[in-house]
Amino acid sequence: MKKKSDRLRPIWLDEDSGNVRIIDQRRLPHDYVTVDLKTVDDVIEAIKEMYVRGAPLIGATGAFGVYVAALTCPGDHGDAAAFILQESERIKAARPTAVNLAWAVDRALSVLETQKSLADKILAAVNLAIQISDEEAENCRKIGEYGLALVAEISRKKNGVVNILTHCNAGWLACVEYGTATAPIYAAFDQGIDVHVWVDETRPLNQGARLTAWELGKHGVAHTVIPDNTGGLLMRRGMVDMVIVGTDRTTWTGDVANKIGTYLKALAARDNDVPFYVALPSSTFDWELADGDMIPIEERSPDEIRYVRGFEGGRERDVLITPKESPCANFAFDVTPARLVTGFITEQGVCAADPSDIQRLFPEKSPFGG
Amino acid sequence: MKKKSDRLRPIWLDEDSGNVRIIDQRRLPHDYVTVDLKTVDDVIEAIKEMYVRGAPLIGATGAFGVYVAALTCPGDHGDAAAFILQESERIKAARPTAVNLAWAVDRALSVLETQKSLADKILAAVNLAIQISDEEAENCRKIGEYGLALVAEISRKKNGVVNILTHCNAGWLACVEYGTATAPIYAAFDQGIDVHVWVDETRPLNQGARLTAWELGKHGVAHTVIPDNTGGLLMRRGMVDMVIVGTDRTTWTGDVANKIGTYLKALAARDNDVPFYVALPSSTFDWELADGDMIPIEERSPDEIRYVRGFEGGRERDVLITPKESPCANFAFDVTPARLVTGFITEQGVCAADPSDIQRLFPEKSPFGG
Repeated sequence: MKKKSDRLRPIWLDEDSGNVRIIDQRRLPHDYVTVDLKTVDDVIEAIKEMYVRGAPLIGATGAFGVYVAALTCPGDHGDAAAFILQESERIKAARPTAVNLAWAVDRALSVLETQKSLADKILAAVNLAIQISDEEAENCRKIGEYGLALVAEISRKKNGVVNILTHCNAGWLACVEYGTATAPIYAAFDQGIDVHVWVDETRPLNQGARLTAWELGKHGVAHTVIPDNTGGLLMRRGMVDMVIVGTDRTTWTGDVANKIGTYLKALAARDNDVPFYVALPSSTFDWELADGDMIPIEERSPDEIRYVRGFEGGRERDVLITPKESPCANFAFDVTPARLVTGFITEQGVCAADPSDIQRLFPEKSPFGG
Repeated sequence: MKKKSDRLRPIWLDEDSGNVRIIDQRRLPHDYVTVDLKTVDDVIEAIKEMYVRGAPLIGATGAFGVYVAALTCPGDHGDAAAFILQESERIKAARPTAVNLAWAVDRALSVLETQKSLADKILAAVNLAIQISDEEAENCRKIGEYGLALVAEISRKKNGVVNILTHCNAGWLACVEYGTATAPIYAAFDQGIDVHVWVDETRPLNQGARLTAWELGKHGVAHTVIPDNTGGLLMRRGMVDMVIVGTDRTTWTGDVANKIGTYLKALAARDNDVPFYVALPSSTFDWELADGDMIPIEERSPDEIRYVRGFEGGRERDVLITPKESPCANFAFDVTPARLVTGFITEQGVCAADPSDIQRLFPEKSPFGG
């Protein structure tokens, strides 16, 4: 159960306690706090309240959640399977937009089905959760390799710093290692390519300002935090060479659900001929959905709009920015239609945002293949 | 010197003290605080630090600033004119993007030139400042009338609530009365038309969340505060019937400089066939500039990105949202090209965003007319 890499991960099995441990990402960048997930309710709260977030990490947490469900099963009276199934459904319902959650939980359940005893189910569950984590880390490493070629090409042509804009956090905190959108950036940086990242702060929860900036800073990557309003001006001025974002769910036709505001950046990229890439492991494709507008869009608490969390006077505070009585709406994601996407960067390579080119990379998975 | 209207204004002459008095808009919506502008330095700080903001109000404040300059002139030794001119240049330099500031100060200076004694200059200055305020209020009232027709037409066709999205604050706080972008909204509401406003919070300084929401709430207009990232999704879902924004400077060719992020909403409106209107008094047109990309874009302190101001524990606080050492960039405005603008709502009527139709409304002012 040892981690296979020395890199920091946002979820792991603690070697001493054996507990599933996560970084509480709500506390970053000001505090580094870890939390143990001992019950299914802990798992659900961590997903729902966004201690953990990001499609690949939500998937890995879901798989660890099935392990916690098995571990907390009241006894092996033959109804363990029913208990685990019921708990798993509760986990799957924690967040509706990211497809990785259902994907990972269902994958865990199908493996557990083949195990007779509760003890075997527990062992199978923990092994699968670790396997999914390792696979996603490896997928992200490959995304970095394929994306690196795109960054290197711009660097060659431009013969200067490559300015990359990203939205939200699709870094290692959102994944397991490397990240999706950040994987090509880290790979380029590690190769000595001169990169600079425009970090959208990403209201309302400021995952860009808090998490992406923190990650990039720790890695030594040059970056500048900007309000979400800024990218359009920068693109008009030629200050953005490419956009790379992650995604929470992408249809097999190429429509992209990602953090609210992504669509606006895709429009600006198109209006200014800036390449707009989406980086994702194949676990984020929804092989059943053809129309991005059918993806369920999570609505979250209006208080996430009303109050901004930040650090002051030695501690974190939630400060009210609106009149207290003003209604607020909090849609967590939007959908960028395939026509605005230059390409997908996946663990199998880069493809265009159209069904046939996606099918070329994943012939066994697309609805028309296999 | 009595106010001609009972409506609240963001700048006025206090009847008791005779001082120029403003609402400190940085403190809204949590505190209502007024400040007296007794020196030119007070005027410059109020403009620079955004106690007052919004193109028409910056213009009115500039005109009152010339009055304060005359009032604080050390003596009438014949060099009063030189002193006032020098102080006025300092006022004009306080913010570079809004054209109304230079327009109002220059207009005041040209009136003062015709006055011989310092006493006469002072009197002329205060009268002109009041006149400009009253004119801008009247212009906004007319903008409301012309814009009302557009809202009413959508209401008739739709036979339901008219959803209007606005960015930043172009309400009476930004103007003198009525506002520019909000004038048609108030006019429609006052006529019993069912309107609902999507209020972009407008990072970094949250003029939407703080000021527009406060204004609309006080007037009883239904509204919902949204992060700046949200408008694209709403438009894709058919939840926005029209966009109305203000502007800080508009070229005679129809390019619009407005609060950063406006361009992104214009792109989304175009992509979804949502009408995108810009409301402005003619004082906001730049009759000399043909290319919007030549408008100087103010860059402000990165601390306005790093820290968010809000209310907690009985007082306002600035909370840090980024890693302390992360660089931030703070461009205050962007430029929306004329091709994305459906029309201008002005005190002379509605016109298309092209030079000839603008010229039709303002024949004496456009570079080709007069």
